[in-house]
Amino acid sequence: MKKIGIIGGAGYTAGELLRLLINHPEAKVEFIHSTSHAGAPVTDVHQGLAGETDLVFSDTHPLDSVDILFLCSAHGHSREFWENNGRPSGLKVIDLAQDFRDESDGYVYGLPEINRDRIARAASVANPGCFATAIQLSLLPLAAAGLLPVGGDINVTALTGSTGAGVKPGATTHFSWRTDNISVYKPFTHQHLKEIGATLEKLQPGNTSTINFVPMRGDFARGIFAVTHLDCDLSEDEAVALYKDFYRDAPFTIVSDRPIDLKQVVNTNKALIHVEKHGRKLLITAAEDNLLKGASGQAVQNMNIMLGIDETAGLRLKPSAF
Amino acid sequence: MKKIGIIGGAGYTAGELLRLLINHPEAKVEFIHSTSHAGAPVTDVHQGLAGETDLVFSDTHPLDSVDILFLCSAHGHSREFWENNGRPSGLKVIDLAQDFRDESDGYVYGLPEINRDRIARAASVANPGCFATAIQLSLLPLAAAGLLPVGGDINVTALTGSTGAGVKPGATTHFSWRTDNISVYKPFTHQHLKEIGATLEKLQPGNTSTINFVPMRGDFARGIFAVTHLDCDLSEDEAVALYKDFYRDAPFTIVSDRPIDLKQVVNTNKALIHVEKHGRKLLITAAEDNLLKGASGQAVQNMNIMLGIDETAGLRLKPSAF
Amino acid sequence: MKKIGIIGGAGYTAGELLRLLINHPEAKVEFIHSTSHAGAPVTDVHQGLAGETDLVFSDTHPLDSVDILFLCSAHGHSREFWENNGRPSGLKVIDLAQDFRDESDGYVYGLPEINRDRIARAASVANPGCFATAIQLSLLPLAAAGLLPVGGDINVTALTGSTGAGVKPGATTHFSWRTDNISVYKPFTHQHLKEIGATLEKLQPGNTSTINFVPMRGDFARGIFAVTHLDCDLSEDEAVALYKDFYRDAPFTIVSDRPIDLKQVVNTNKALIHVEKHGRKLLITAAEDNLLKGASGQAVQNMNIMLGIDETAGLRLKPSAF
Amino acid sequence: MKKIGIIGGAGYTAGELLRLLINHPEAKVEFIHSTSHAGAPVTDVHQGLAGETDLVFSDTHPLDSVDILFLCSAHGHSREFWENNGRPSGLKVIDLAQDFRDESDGYVYGLPEINRDRIARAASVANPGCFATAIQLSLLPLAAAGLLPVGGDINVTALTGSTGAGVKPGATTHFSWRTDNISVYKPFTHQHLKEIGATLEKLQPGNTSTINFVPMRGDFARGIFAVTHLDCDLSEDEAVALYKDFYRDAPFTIVSDRPIDLKQVVNTNKALIHVEKHGRKLLITAAEDNLLKGASGQAVQNMNIMLGIDETAGLRLKPSAF
Repeated sequence: MKKIGIIGGAGYTAGELLRLLINHPEAKVEFIHSTSHAGAPVTDVHQGLAGETDLVFSDTHPLDSVDILFLCSAHGHSREFWENNGRPSGLKVIDLAQDFRDESDGYVYGLPEINRDRIARAASVANPGCFATAIQLSLLPLAAAGLLPVGGDINVTALTGSTGAGVKPGATTHFSWRTDNISVYKPFTHQHLKEIGATLEKLQPGNTSTINFVPMRGDFARGIFAVTHLDCDLSEDEAVALYKDFYRDAPFTIVSDRPIDLKQVVNTNKALIHVEKHGRKLLITAAEDNLLKGASGQAVQNMNIMLGIDETAGLRLKPSAF
Repeated sequence: MKKIGIIGGAGYTAGELLRLLINHPEAKVEFIHSTSHAGAPVTDVHQGLAGETDLVFSDTHPLDSVDILFLCSAHGHSREFWENNGRPSGLKVIDLAQDFRDESDGYVYGLPEINRDRIARAASVANPGCFATAIQLSLLPLAAAGLLPVGGDINVTALTGSTGAGVKPGATTHFSWRTDNISVYKPFTHQHLKEIGATLEKLQPGNTSTINFVPMRGDFARGIFAVTHLDCDLSEDEAVALYKDFYRDAPFTIVSDRPIDLKQVVNTNKALIHVEKHGRKLLITAAEDNLLKGASGQAVQNMNIMLGIDETAGLRLKPSAF
Repeated sequence: MKKIGIIGGAGYTAGELLRLLINHPEAKVEFIHSTSHAGAPVTDVHQGLAGETDLVFSDTHPLDSVDILFLCSAHGHSREFWENNGRPSGLKVIDLAQDFRDESDGYVYGLPEINRDRIARAASVANPGCFATAIQLSLLPLAAAGLLPVGGDINVTALTGSTGAGVKPGATTHFSWRTDNISVYKPFTHQHLKEIGATLEKLQPGNTSTINFVPMRGDFARGIFAVTHLDCDLSEDEAVALYKDFYRDAPFTIVSDRPIDLKQVVNTNKALIHVEKHGRKLLITAAEDNLLKGASGQAVQNMNIMLGIDETAGLRLKPSAF
Repeated sequence: MKKIGIIGGAGYTAGELLRLLINHPEAKVEFIHSTSHAGAPVTDVHQGLAGETDLVFSDTHPLDSVDILFLCSAHGHSREFWENNGRPSGLKVIDLAQDFRDESDGYVYGLPEINRDRIARAASVANPGCFATAIQLSLLPLAAAGLLPVGGDINVTALTGSTGAGVKPGATTHFSWRTDNISVYKPFTHQHLKEIGATLEKLQPGNTSTINFVPMRGDFARGIFAVTHLDCDLSEDEAVALYKDFYRDAPFTIVSDRPIDLKQVVNTNKALIHVEKHGRKLLITAAEDNLLKGASGQAVQNMNIMLGIDETAGLRLKPSAF
């Protein structure tokens, strides 16, 4: 059993990580650190685990006692963590914040669909953002084939669940406001555009296409549903074949022949992709669970790859379906 | 046009009051006071009014400029308000907090179904609580007929919408937690039991029955749905006749021959009551909109009665239905 | 009081119409016809009206007894209705189906924001589609100014509430499936594109722009939220001024200076529009209640205009807000 | 690997069963029979399984090819099935309908918390109803201790998710109606009262207490939340100890020291129970996932017991939490 440490244990991504690792066949959580809840049972905070664990939030984080460390704190805190703590040699690290997604400090960008081999060899992995995962999975096969429209528009509208906004309550996560409501935020300026752009530039250098990304707040707790369209010369059959071929070896990214809906993937680590052609436009829809393939599930997938065990271990999850 | 002042203008009940008064044929809001939002357009906070009003939150509350004052601050603050402010003679007052529901300081308990005449003559009215309204409307006809079970149990389970918990965000109004969720709070001890008990004691002195009240948090924003049952010797026909007769003159309390559902009343000032007999048990279901008949709608109804105008003025509201 | 007849009385749009007309100061519903529910009280079907009306569904439709007739049947049935029934001279007609939105047979397209004067003189009005209303309101000021991008893309993604799918239950309106779910339907091919295209062509002949419209099923009952973007040379200030100027006299279409959310308009006849500039893209968000400004509310607005009464009569509705 | 057959494969309980068995370490689905969908991939109907299985609905059900058979058809059809089909000796059967819950024809009532040993020896098991499971788990420790109030009232109000109503769409599962709505159905007469009564009579013969059960439709897809109270002489500490002791060996029934909420158990096979004392009343709240502990999860639990494997195999499910 590999020994696991978690920093920032009271947030949503840490909770989901714990819910995964508690049933993982090859992992054992050694400590889960939380400044705010130190000393309290984790089931006080992550209440869905009632009856399943006696773990208590720790106020220490003995880094030399674990094989792999997950950083689940807010953006900016991961970099800060390493300024204040020495890193034992041999310790593997997966950061769920955005601090190292630019691959600085030797981190590898943890999107297995393009970086599986690099992740397998990496000591440090920067886990992708939730929107970034859905949008990249929608575009990777095209970029890899050099088919992003040079100088053209890539139009993306995507809805996210409220868990994407974190555990701290606020005006836009107040139930009275959010339920039955839809709104736009950070249009054309969302921070995930940066990591998406970096990936696409690597796959199709100089593509000069523009991503017009309009993120929306959905009135559901879990999931991201992304609608993308762009000019493309491929026929529908060619496009479907391109996508299926690209994701042939990806255990969690599935190209669906049928139109998809969000709940097909909720509570799973899967991303579903569907491709259609309308006139000159290629339409790509993508669905994922923002806390799983969009965060903690992908983090465990990266852990599996880094540890050389079955990529799907601990991630064969029953879909909620309803 | 009667001139209206509102204290505590940024909360949910003040917002609903404003949404009602803005279209009221005989009322004009003279000021709406808010410490936290003074100077801001009310549409910054009560955004559903966009395009309908230029009102600005006031940092003063010139009590002698208005005919009637609504107190919409948190519980305890109404009493405090009068400790710090003189009350012009002739000013009518409706308090939406629980401070004067015990009819202290000359306040009349503002439940028109039993106190219409006293309200018409009152200078000060204490508006009932939301659960208290639904539960009293479920029991008034029995109490008035002396039919509450002496020494017996009255079992009430009721669900409330999230707006009942106020505008301040917290753990139990976080969308991620509340959506698709159900929970119990303050079982057997909810503060509204006090005003309910006082009313029932007045109507059926010495009834010695016990209300076993289990309040629940529902995963919807608006509404209260209350299920009540108790031992009763009446036949179903007799009970229905008793209820219909009791509410004959109540414009908003309607005894339905069909089973009811919550959304029949959402966004209206109506309370729907349905009565069935099963064995020796009388089952009473009641539905209301917690912000309307359960708060601001009933406050306007009381205002209408106090001002001697049509009780339904400004309250003939289109149901949401969906 | 004008006398009203309604055909197709059991559906959602007829129900909403009834909920509006029952409190309309100058209208009286003379008959509401339903083949399937003839003889039943309308409150059996439109249950939100419990206690407010004794109307019964009629099995006859005496056209000469009314001043104005609303056709609320399914698409195709309006044209069929006139094949089987004579039309009294002097009878005004508003059709809520799509049968005459091409302005055939003398119908005027009932979008007051462009056709107020023609509607005022019309005997027959074809009420616009729900998506069509939201999308046209997003684009009218640009088209009127000749600013649609010639040969360019207009990208529209919009979500609709489940009431848009009608009262008949089916797989995609099953609660178990729809709740917490998001999906795409009829991408690039939705039937409303036809009436939108016709309007834009009239305002900016030969504009040759393409509308890439991706409709989505939202997990809420009421409302449409539309996100539109396109290339535009105007600055943000110029665009906002253009929109505000265009809608200066529209009582229900409001240009908001703040970002908007869907619930601001739910249960009102308002459409809210917000305009931002990002790089070369103009982003327009629009929100409406699909059953009100998107259907029955706009039908009453058209009725008011046709009858020469205040355009807002019966339509000053309290927003739900929550 | 044990070979599994499923009859009635297109419904909700069969879908959930399949989602469980597909990852079960010791089971393999040999056939899943559906009259209506024979020949179609199961992922056409149970879409959450996209990418996880190539199974196709079968139009035959070769009973001698499997070790254990799950009957997932509508109530009444299981009895009918055996009238039309011979049963191979050695075939184990679990019926999810209510046909044999009276333990007729040699079926054992499949509630492991009281019948684990009998289930282990049974050839045929009748899986309990969803409400019946939640309510029995709320009362078993009292009944076993002879503490049900003789001649007294047991008051139960419980809400169920929409999946309890099955896959066939209808008026009360229409999203437009159900969302944000609450209603009562079958008060005092729900069919599950029968199996609950039989169990309690067995544990505390002649208890003569009456269960006043008011079932409610909740506006969520998954889950049952049940509130029960009754007169009880135990102190709170004694009651908690009684419950904890009774469920000591039950891997999925957990007595929580904290008040519970529904989502703690959604997507798990757990039942959470919480006990409080108020005056003379014992208050018991219980939460379960109606499709898991309330149906297919408990069926797999029974299968595990019948096959002599770990009771929790295939049932260590990640909670949804949100």
